[in-house]
Amino acid sequence: MRSFPLNAWYAAAWDADITHALFPRTICDQKMVMFRRTDGTIAALEDACWHRLYPLSRGRLEGDEVVCGYHGLVYNSQGHCIHMPSQETINPAACVRTFPALVRHRFVWIWPGDPALADPDKVPDLHWNHDPAWAGDGKTIFARCNYRLVLDNLMDLTHETFVHGSSIGHREVAEAPFETTHGNRTATVTRWIEGIHPPPFWDGQMKRKFGKSGLVDRWQIIRFEAPSTITIDVGVAFAGTGAPQGDRSQGVNGFVLNTITPETEGTCHYFWAFVRNYHLTEQSLTTELREGVFRIFGEDEAVLEAQQIAMAERPDYTFYNINIDSGSMWARRLIDKMLQEEKSSATVIPIRQTA
Amino acid sequence: MRSFPLNAWYAAAWDADITHALFPRTICDQKMVMFRRTDGTIAALEDACWHRLYPLSRGRLEGDEVVCGYHGLVYNSQGHCIHMPSQETINPAACVRTFPALVRHRFVWIWPGDPALADPDKVPDLHWNHDPAWAGDGKTIFARCNYRLVLDNLMDLTHETFVHGSSIGHREVAEAPFETTHGNRTATVTRWIEGIHPPPFWDGQMKRKFGKSGLVDRWQIIRFEAPSTITIDVGVAFAGTGAPQGDRSQGVNGFVLNTITPETEGTCHYFWAFVRNYHLTEQSLTTELREGVFRIFGEDEAVLEAQQIAMAERPDYTFYNINIDSGSMWARRLIDKMLQEEKSSATVIPIRQTA
Amino acid sequence: MRSFPLNAWYAAAWDADITHALFPRTICDQKMVMFRRTDGTIAALEDACWHRLYPLSRGRLEGDEVVCGYHGLVYNSQGHCIHMPSQETINPAACVRTFPALVRHRFVWIWPGDPALADPDKVPDLHWNHDPAWAGDGKTIFARCNYRLVLDNLMDLTHETFVHGSSIGHREVAEAPFETTHGNRTATVTRWIEGIHPPPFWDGQMKRKFGKSGLVDRWQIIRFEAPSTITIDVGVAFAGTGAPQGDRSQGVNGFVLNTITPETEGTCHYFWAFVRNYHLTEQSLTTELREGVFRIFGEDEAVLEAQQIAMAERPDYTFYNINIDSGSMWARRLIDKMLQEEKSSATVIPIRQTA
Repeated sequence: MRSFPLNAWYAAAWDADITHALFPRTICDQKMVMFRRTDGTIAALEDACWHRLYPLSRGRLEGDEVVCGYHGLVYNSQGHCIHMPSQETINPAACVRTFPALVRHRFVWIWPGDPALADPDKVPDLHWNHDPAWAGDGKTIFARCNYRLVLDNLMDLTHETFVHGSSIGHREVAEAPFETTHGNRTATVTRWIEGIHPPPFWDGQMKRKFGKSGLVDRWQIIRFEAPSTITIDVGVAFAGTGAPQGDRSQGVNGFVLNTITPETEGTCHYFWAFVRNYHLTEQSLTTELREGVFRIFGEDEAVLEAQQIAMAERPDYTFYNINIDSGSMWARRLIDKMLQEEKSSATVIPIRQTA
Repeated sequence: MRSFPLNAWYAAAWDADITHALFPRTICDQKMVMFRRTDGTIAALEDACWHRLYPLSRGRLEGDEVVCGYHGLVYNSQGHCIHMPSQETINPAACVRTFPALVRHRFVWIWPGDPALADPDKVPDLHWNHDPAWAGDGKTIFARCNYRLVLDNLMDLTHETFVHGSSIGHREVAEAPFETTHGNRTATVTRWIEGIHPPPFWDGQMKRKFGKSGLVDRWQIIRFEAPSTITIDVGVAFAGTGAPQGDRSQGVNGFVLNTITPETEGTCHYFWAFVRNYHLTEQSLTTELREGVFRIFGEDEAVLEAQQIAMAERPDYTFYNINIDSGSMWARRLIDKMLQEEKSSATVIPIRQTA
Repeated sequence: MRSFPLNAWYAAAWDADITHALFPRTICDQKMVMFRRTDGTIAALEDACWHRLYPLSRGRLEGDEVVCGYHGLVYNSQGHCIHMPSQETINPAACVRTFPALVRHRFVWIWPGDPALADPDKVPDLHWNHDPAWAGDGKTIFARCNYRLVLDNLMDLTHETFVHGSSIGHREVAEAPFETTHGNRTATVTRWIEGIHPPPFWDGQMKRKFGKSGLVDRWQIIRFEAPSTITIDVGVAFAGTGAPQGDRSQGVNGFVLNTITPETEGTCHYFWAFVRNYHLTEQSLTTELREGVFRIFGEDEAVLEAQQIAMAERPDYTFYNINIDSGSMWARRLIDKMLQEEKSSATVIPIRQTA
């Protein structure tokens, strides 16, 4: 029982990670080797030589061709074997699978499913990551848990109070009311906490921008886009200046951009960035925020890995949802819908490309 | 095929190990979190939050309540959830299992089976451990073997000759005759070796008490109490002074107290103490004896872990018993009897406590 | 589905490795303990005491008898228990299995199958290893791969170009024609590359012997002897001096001797030596060649272990052979023939020796 849809774009790496060099990564249980072609586009091939399964990522790149590091078979970037040692005629079946790949929003995206369905319009919206009105940076976290545990974690920020008590945690968050809505591919959790003392982090940002402290209205708007992207619109504005009604000019605003890529059922790569719409050119602030978020996310990963182990030990456990789970419940329903669609379509995902 | 009865008291820790802090331990394949309540009694709960199975031992204790470290659900020490974040009404099914627990003979005891059967009178007799007529101390050993291999090891002291040749080993022990008797819940192996030169350890103890050396009568009386407690009455007295007939006044006497608690089928916690009835207030002797025994037991653990690995590789091997196995053979029969009783009783052990 | 025949001689160790001391080794999934008897012959016993399976290799040797390190059972070198503690009568079934063993060509050989078939004439021919006309030395490599992957690697030297590019690799090798022949128990791949510039290694050897460089004829004659021995006759002679016709006097000649012993399905011990027929008494050359070959073989082991992992992940993959696989294809066929013979013979290999 696979927990992730295959017919979707998944972030494979940060844009800058993929150069003209062989880069191995497993996505949705499929081992791939990626590289940037000489024309700047991305190639993604199955990471196993047709002949004896030796990982192509352990060979070498010659132009846009991959030479196997064991017996020297050569593949072009479309996955076709174009040279065999001591041999004139090449078996036309000698191919490795390739995967649709493209660059957008500072990430490299891969489509591990049916290539015929790989519509570039379906790449999740993370435009803030390269929008000049926003500035920020992020990292990649390797997490030893099913990718949905990361989604659950992000869809309910109540946990900030208990997991992140020393930084962004706030008793008021755990008790503030919230609203959950959903569409066909998206689910949104909206929480406004009005007229409160800001927690230390946000108080610092307000002082930085406005040079003063004060009561604030705080918002967290979590938006899930199936199967595994979550943006969180976060910020505070001075209380009573109209932020809940749409005027955020007296506040500071950030977006936490998150997209999670299953590696296996029990591991994932979690790509995130934190961007802001103030002090755009202050590079030291970018670094400070990135490292601050990274420390906080480290607390989450420890929790999620413990949860993964506990859940693996109790495969038959029946889970019950409580109020705070409404966001993650909708996220999981939308994922299940994608899985159901994939199952009922007659599409057979090709394991091996034909010549 | 479980190898340990559940309806029994098992030592969970030394008394002093359990304070007003969360202490995780797995007993008979069940993960528990223990703590001392503010009134000094022991609470033992299932170590998995009802909501998402996150280990409660990773949360925090507030008074006698446990706060989950992920979403902040709060449990009282009877296992009932008494608070959920962002929620007024609490699902009455939101409970975790609790385990009967008590303190006796300097150990904390847990009953992993049916709570209705947890009769305090069934705690194994290890009274020497707090009897003012005896003095001594012990340790906890984590052993990577099935708990019955530790029992086998203790029920036959022939192995002293081969495993502990450099300390208490004695060629005469391996060849001395012994007698095995048994009751309903106990089995006893008695060995008297009369008129011998004492081995270095006992010679030292005799000199300490009487200031002189001499031929001795040596005894080893091993008593098993199902399912996993063994006391060994050991000592020497000057030869011909009547020890075999009951007068031990011209000798020194110790008790090795052992109780072994299955963690899983392949691991256990082994709690032991060595107590003596002479030089009661000499604390340096207590330390010397405890560390001496600890070194010797380390030799056993290496043997048992190698045996566990060898046995796991040959699951279908048929074992034959030889003379020296009569004690361990009876111990295993009494354990099997308990397992059989547990199976034939209609008792269903509750996995989850009802509210 | 076992991949190795049991009715065959396998190298267990270098001759010098086995002294009058207990030496454990697993051969074809069978744990053995070996030692040299006081008369210099080799004993090989099952490495598990009849009584409780404790590894005999953890006990001690007394003369030609093995004393179990747990309860002190004593076995003679024919595997019969000749002493039990606290016991007069010994169960005649108390035996451990023994394995035929002999020393030849500087190796200790073990026959893990039916002892009745252990014909010393079937030891693979590696006479160069002690022939005074040849000089050299070798090592033992533990490889985490099925033994046949090492055979595949040796049967096709095309891979030198890609795996060993910095030392013996030679683009001409990958493209030179070769011929494959086979017999009942052997397969041979012969490659002559005439009139070429010698690669650095061979150029150095020619200068050493003849004091000059020049174009050469190069040969590689790979001979497989089932189930797992490969000798490689390698060398170069000055071009046009008649080497292909049989006159090697104007060249240098080496033999790479290889024999691989399955430990388990996924691991093996690989014994090899490199011997030469020139500068026989130059001990520093022996060392230099042995260490040089060892560095090159280290590159192979890294490749083979990666291949093993990749193949284990794709158990249903269908492999296709290309031209360069003809040698390994024949080697595998001859192994399969041995396995088939073993299966169809009614021989039951005794797991436990009878008294």
